[in-house]
Amino acid sequence: MARACIDGNEAAARVAYAFSEVIAIYPITPSSPMGEQADAWSAAGRGNLWGTTPRVVEMQSEAGAAGTLHGAIQKGALTTTFTSSQGLLLMIPNMFKIAGELTPTVLHVAARTIATHALSIFGDHSDVMTTRATGFAMLASSSVQEAHDLAAVAHASTLKSRVPFLHFFDGFRTSHELNDVELIDQDDLRALVDDGDVLAHRARGLSPDRPVLRGSAQNPDVFFQAREGINPFYDAIPGIVQDTMDAFAARTGRRYRLVEYEGHPEADRVVVLMGSGVGAVQEAVEDLVRRGERVGLVKVRLYRPFPAAQLLAALPASVRRIAVLDRTKEPGAVGEPLLTDVTTTLAEAVMTGRLAPTALPRVIGGRYGLSSKEFTPRMVKAVFDELAKGEPKPRFTVGIVDDVTHLSLSLDPDFAPARREGDVEAVFFGLGADGTVGANKNTVKIVGEHTGLHTQGYFVYDSRKSGAQTVSHLRFSRDPIRSTYLIEKADFVACHQFGFLSTRDVLGAAKPGATVLLNAPLPTEAVWDALPEPVQRQILDNDLKLYAIDAYRVARELGLGARINTVMQPCFFALSGILPRDEAIAAVKQSVQYTYGRRGPEIVERNIAAIDRSLEELHEVPVSEKVTSTTGMRPAVPPSVPDFVERITARILTGEGDLLPVSALPVDGTFPTGTTRYEKRAIAQEIPIWDPEI
Amino acid sequence: MARACIDGNEAAARVAYAFSEVIAIYPITPSSPMGEQADAWSAAGRGNLWGTTPRVVEMQSEAGAAGTLHGAIQKGALTTTFTSSQGLLLMIPNMFKIAGELTPTVLHVAARTIATHALSIFGDHSDVMTTRATGFAMLASSSVQEAHDLAAVAHASTLKSRVPFLHFFDGFRTSHELNDVELIDQDDLRALVDDGDVLAHRARGLSPDRPVLRGSAQNPDVFFQAREGINPFYDAIPGIVQDTMDAFAARTGRRYRLVEYEGHPEADRVVVLMGSGVGAVQEAVEDLVRRGERVGLVKVRLYRPFPAAQLLAALPASVRRIAVLDRTKEPGAVGEPLLTDVTTTLAEAVMTGRLAPTALPRVIGGRYGLSSKEFTPRMVKAVFDELAKGEPKPRFTVGIVDDVTHLSLSLDPDFAPARREGDVEAVFFGLGADGTVGANKNTVKIVGEHTGLHTQGYFVYDSRKSGAQTVSHLRFSRDPIRSTYLIEKADFVACHQFGFLSTRDVLGAAKPGATVLLNAPLPTEAVWDALPEPVQRQILDNDLKLYAIDAYRVARELGLGARINTVMQPCFFALSGILPRDEAIAAVKQSVQYTYGRRGPEIVERNIAAIDRSLEELHEVPVSEKVTSTTGMRPAVPPSVPDFVERITARILTGEGDLLPVSALPVDGTFPTGTTRYEKRAIAQEIPIWDPEI
Repeated sequence: MARACIDGNEAAARVAYAFSEVIAIYPITPSSPMGEQADAWSAAGRGNLWGTTPRVVEMQSEAGAAGTLHGAIQKGALTTTFTSSQGLLLMIPNMFKIAGELTPTVLHVAARTIATHALSIFGDHSDVMTTRATGFAMLASSSVQEAHDLAAVAHASTLKSRVPFLHFFDGFRTSHELNDVELIDQDDLRALVDDGDVLAHRARGLSPDRPVLRGSAQNPDVFFQAREGINPFYDAIPGIVQDTMDAFAARTGRRYRLVEYEGHPEADRVVVLMGSGVGAVQEAVEDLVRRGERVGLVKVRLYRPFPAAQLLAALPASVRRIAVLDRTKEPGAVGEPLLTDVTTTLAEAVMTGRLAPTALPRVIGGRYGLSSKEFTPRMVKAVFDELAKGEPKPRFTVGIVDDVTHLSLSLDPDFAPARREGDVEAVFFGLGADGTVGANKNTVKIVGEHTGLHTQGYFVYDSRKSGAQTVSHLRFSRDPIRSTYLIEKADFVACHQFGFLSTRDVLGAAKPGATVLLNAPLPTEAVWDALPEPVQRQILDNDLKLYAIDAYRVARELGLGARINTVMQPCFFALSGILPRDEAIAAVKQSVQYTYGRRGPEIVERNIAAIDRSLEELHEVPVSEKVTSTTGMRPAVPPSVPDFVERITARILTGEGDLLPVSALPVDGTFPTGTTRYEKRAIAQEIPIWDPEI
Repeated sequence: MARACIDGNEAAARVAYAFSEVIAIYPITPSSPMGEQADAWSAAGRGNLWGTTPRVVEMQSEAGAAGTLHGAIQKGALTTTFTSSQGLLLMIPNMFKIAGELTPTVLHVAARTIATHALSIFGDHSDVMTTRATGFAMLASSSVQEAHDLAAVAHASTLKSRVPFLHFFDGFRTSHELNDVELIDQDDLRALVDDGDVLAHRARGLSPDRPVLRGSAQNPDVFFQAREGINPFYDAIPGIVQDTMDAFAARTGRRYRLVEYEGHPEADRVVVLMGSGVGAVQEAVEDLVRRGERVGLVKVRLYRPFPAAQLLAALPASVRRIAVLDRTKEPGAVGEPLLTDVTTTLAEAVMTGRLAPTALPRVIGGRYGLSSKEFTPRMVKAVFDELAKGEPKPRFTVGIVDDVTHLSLSLDPDFAPARREGDVEAVFFGLGADGTVGANKNTVKIVGEHTGLHTQGYFVYDSRKSGAQTVSHLRFSRDPIRSTYLIEKADFVACHQFGFLSTRDVLGAAKPGATVLLNAPLPTEAVWDALPEPVQRQILDNDLKLYAIDAYRVARELGLGARINTVMQPCFFALSGILPRDEAIAAVKQSVQYTYGRRGPEIVERNIAAIDRSLEELHEVPVSEKVTSTTGMRPAVPPSVPDFVERITARILTGEGDLLPVSALPVDGTFPTGTTRYEKRAIAQEIPIWDPEI
C-alpha cells in the first residue's frame, strides 16, 4: 500500500473522485481544494473506479451545486460535492429532497463555523449540525487518514443503503493538516462496491424509456404514510456501515467501528466527542491512564442515524460521569446536539430497564473549539478534573476564559502528555508569501514520503493572507501523529523575519534547550546585540542554541531574489536532528532532483549549489553569559491610542487574542472604526526613498 | 374590546403590521396572505403603532426578503417578515447573522412541511425545527387567538431582549382557520412596548454620524469568546417573555405562561406538545378526566430558549408516563426535537438531584399530523392508552396505519369527546370556484360577528384548486371552539354538487338524525329515486332529514348565473338551527345590506328577493320507507385499470387516501405516469354538443 503526505481535503477528494461520475462544485473555504483538485484531475482526464472521467460542473452558488447534484442523481449518475459553512446551508432544501427520494450521494464537508456576530473561515460543527434534520446519514472523520478511509465507507454505504451521506471532518484542522496517509488501492475501493447497487441506482434513474413520475405533490391524506415508508432504510444503515467498515478492514487492515471506546477498561469518567478533537483526547487519556486515572474516551463516527445501541454497548459499565463535547453552539437549546443525543440515549436506557435508575451516569455538556479555537490535552485534563468534582458544571466551555457567565473551566498549566522519545517538533515564523509555508510543506513531504518517519504539518495563517504572519507547525515521529493542536514548546524554532523578534513572543514557542534559527540581516557576530532584552533573557534562561543566517543576502547573491526558502530549508535539515545531518542534506538534495529534474541538469546543479552555499553561511551565534541588551519589545500600537485599541486590538496584533476573556469582546460584533491606522506591521525589507531628481 | 372573525394569518399580520416600519415579503403558501394583507394595508396608507405607514418590500425570493430584513434592522428599523417551508430554509444564513448580532425582529411562520419524497403545501413543524440552531427565540401559537396574542408578545419581547423571535403557528390548521378573536386594542399593543427599547435599537443602527464596524471576520483567537458574550441575553429571555405575557394579561385578561399544564391535578399520564394539536388534546383530556382518568396536558409556548425549569415546574409530581408529540420527522435522529428536549430536561433533573432516580417518568415519543394529517381527540385517547400499557412503544406514530415498521397506534372507533349542548356542526361539499367556500366564510362572519355565538370555519381544498372538491367545516357554539380537526359527524350536511353523491361518501359525514341539504337538478319528488342505493340506505339507517333545492335553476332564473351560493346560504340558515329560523333569515338579509349596501338599494333588493325566492324553492324530500334504488356508486376509475391505479389512485380520488397504509405508498415518491386519464371527475353541469351546422 502506497503512503502519501496529503491533507484532509486531498484525502477525501481522491476517494470522492474515484466513486463519481458527476461532481458539482462551488468553492468555499476550507473545502475549495477538494473541488479544485477534482476539477484538475478531470481536466487531466484521470479516470474514476470504472475508468470514465467524471464531469466536474461548477455552478453559480452552492444552491446550484446542490441542484446539479439532485438532477444528476435522479438520472442515475454517481455523484458527489464538497462544501462548508454557508455553502452547506444553501444546500439544505435540496438535501431534504435527495434524502426523501432515497437517492445515494455523498456530500464531503470541511466543517466550518457559520457566520454569526462575525464571519469566520475557520472550523467547527455549526454547519453540519444545522443539516441534521435533512435525513442525510452523517459520518465524522477525526484525522486525515480517516477522511480518506471514511470517505470510502460513505460512498459504499450510500449505494447499499440508498440514503445519502454527509461525510465531514474539521475545517482547517483536518482539511488543511498534512499527514502521512496510507492510500487505499483502487482495487480495494472497487471491492467495496456491489455492482448490483450501482445497477439498481441506474435502474431507478429517470429515463424516457421507462417513464415514472417523481417530485409530485401530496396532500394530507397520504403524505404522512408515504413519509414513514423510509423507516426500514434508516433502520438498516448502522448495519450497512459496520459491514462496510468490516469489509474495508479485511482489505486494508484499518478497522473502524460506529462508536469506539478507548481508555481504562473500568473508567469512571468518560468524554464523548467526534471530529479532530479525538486526537487531543486520545493523548490526554493515554497519559492520564498511565498516571492511574480511570478515564476513557468514546469516539462517535456515525452521527446519523444516531447509534444509540452501539453507544450504550461502548460505554464501560463502570462509568459514573460523562462529559459530552460539542464543537458548536446552539443558543437557547436545552443542550448542544451531541449532548442531548447522549443524554436521551442514557435516559431511555433507564426508562426501558436496560440500565438501573441509580446507574444513570451524570452527563455534562461542554462547548470547545468554536472557529478552530485550540483544543489541547490540557483542556481535556480540565474536563476530566471537572467530572471529578462533587458538583460539576452542567454546561461548560473549555479553551477560553468566560468571565461573564463563568462557564469556562480553568486549566492546569503544568499538564502536558509526555512526549515520545525521538519526536521532533518544529515551529517556523514566516511572512505570508515569503515561501516559508511552501518550503515546510515540502519538508513534510520529503520526510514523510522518503523516510520511515511519520510527519504532520499544520499552517496558521492570518485571514489577512499575504503579508501577514504565518506560523508553520511541523511534527516528526516514529509513531503515527495524532496531536490535533498547535505545538506549544518546540525542539526547533525558526524565525524567518528578524523583525518579529521585536514584536511577538517568538521564542515563547521554544522549549528549554531548543535550537533556534534566525534569518538575520546582520553579520553573525552582530546578532546577539541586535536582540531585544526579553529575547536575550529567554535564550539564556532556557539555554537555547542560537543559529543565524543572513538569508536575504545569500538568496540575492544566489540569484534567488527574495525567495529565502531555498536557503532556510537546508539549514533546518542541518540543525533539527530529525535525521542524521548528512542523511538530511542528502534528502534535501534528492528532493531538488524531484522538483527541478524536468527543467534540466543546470537548474538542478544551481539549486544544489545553493544548498551547499547556504550551509556554509549558517553559523552558530555566540551568546553572552548575561543579558546585554537594553532595548525592549516594540509596542504593537503607538502610545496614547484609544482604550479599545490598547485593550483589544493591540493584543490581537501581538498574537495574544487567545488570552482575551469574554468580557473584552463586543457582544454583537460591533467594533470601533479606523483602528487599522494603529496597526504598523513594519515588515518591509527595503524602504523606498523619494528621489526628487527623477 | 372588538371581536372579529379572522384567520390565523390575519391575526398575526395585524399585530406584525402594527409593530413594523419595514416589512420584507415573498409569497409562499400558507403564509402568503400575511404578506398580501400587509401590502394592501400599506398601499392604503394604514399606520402602525406610531402612526407611520410601514414600507412593504417584495423581493425576488425569501433569501432576498431575509437580506432586506437584515439590512433594515441594521439601520435601526422595526421589521418583520412572513414565510413558510422552503422559504424559511432560504432565510437560515441571514437568521444566524441576525441572531448573532443581537438584533430584534420577528419572523412569523405559518409552519409547513418541507418537501421530501413529495412536495406538500400543508402544515407541520419540519420547517421551523430546521431553524432551531440559528439562535432565534421561538414562540408557538396553538390557535387563531394565540396567533394574535403571541405575535404581540413576540414583538414586545424581541425589543426588550434584543434576540430575534420566530413566532409560528400551524400552516392551514391555524393560518387558514376562521375563528372569532378578541382583537387587541392599539393602545394595549402600544403599552407593551418600552420606548427606551425602541430608542436603544435605533441608537444601535448603523449611521454615518456615529460610524461603527459590524459584520467583520474573526479568527480563532477571539471568535469563541465573542460568541459566548451573548449568553446573558439568552438567559434573560424566559423572564422577559413571561413579564410581557403578564403585562399583556393585565390589559387584556388573557393570561399565558411559557409552559402550561392542564388536566387532572394528580395525573399519572401526560402529553406534551405545541401548536394547534393542543386543541384536540385539551378536548380529549377534559373528556377523559370527566371519565375518571388521571391524565393531563403540557402546552409548550416558548420553545427556544427551551424553558426546562418551567417544564419541570409545570409537570405534576404524580406523573409516571409522558408522551411527547412532535409534528415533524427527523430520520436518523435519536428522537424528534421536542422529545429529546423533554427527555434531556428530565434526565438532568435526576442527574442534578432535583428528581429522585426512581421518579424519572417513562417518556415516549410520537409523530403526528405530518403535512396536516388529521389529529383528533380519538388519536389523543390512543396515546393515553399506549401510555397505560406495560411496555409502551418508545417511538410511535398516530393518525396513520403503519403496516411496515408497525409504529402506529390503533384507534378506538367509539371514542369521541362528548359534544356540548347546543353546538352545531355543519359540513358542505362544493366544487372549487362554485362559491361554496366564499359563502361559508361569510356565514361564519355573520354568525361570529353579529350573534353571541362562537364560530369556526375550516376549508379543505384539494391542491388541484379550481374544479376540485371543497369541503367546508363550520362549527357554532356558545363556548370558544378549540376543535382543531375536521368534523366527523355533522348536524348538517350540504351537498352543493349532486354528482358527488354517486362518487363519494358524502352522507358519511352526517350524524344520526342530521339534516341533509342537496342541490339537486331535479324536481323534489324525483330526488329520492335519483339517489344511489347506498345513499338511500344511509338516509334510512341514520334517520336523516332530507331537503333539496334545484339551486342552479333558481340561480339562473334569478339572473345569478352559476353562483349558487346566494341560493344555498339562506337554505342553510333556514335549516341548520343555529339561530331560530326568523332570526337567521334576518341575519342573512342584514349581511346582504352590509355586502351590497354601497352598490345601491336596487342590488340589495334583488339579493333580498333572491333569499326569499330560494326559501320558497327549498323543499323537504319525501323519503321512502325502504331502499328503492338499484343503482350503485359510480366507480372512481373504470374497470380493469392497472393494479396501482385501482389500489391507490382510485382510493385517493374517492377521498379515502387517509385509509391507505404505509405499505401502499411508494417509499421514494415514485409513481407510475399517465394515471390522470383514469380520473374522470364528471363535474360539468352542461355538456357541450358538437353542432356541425355552425
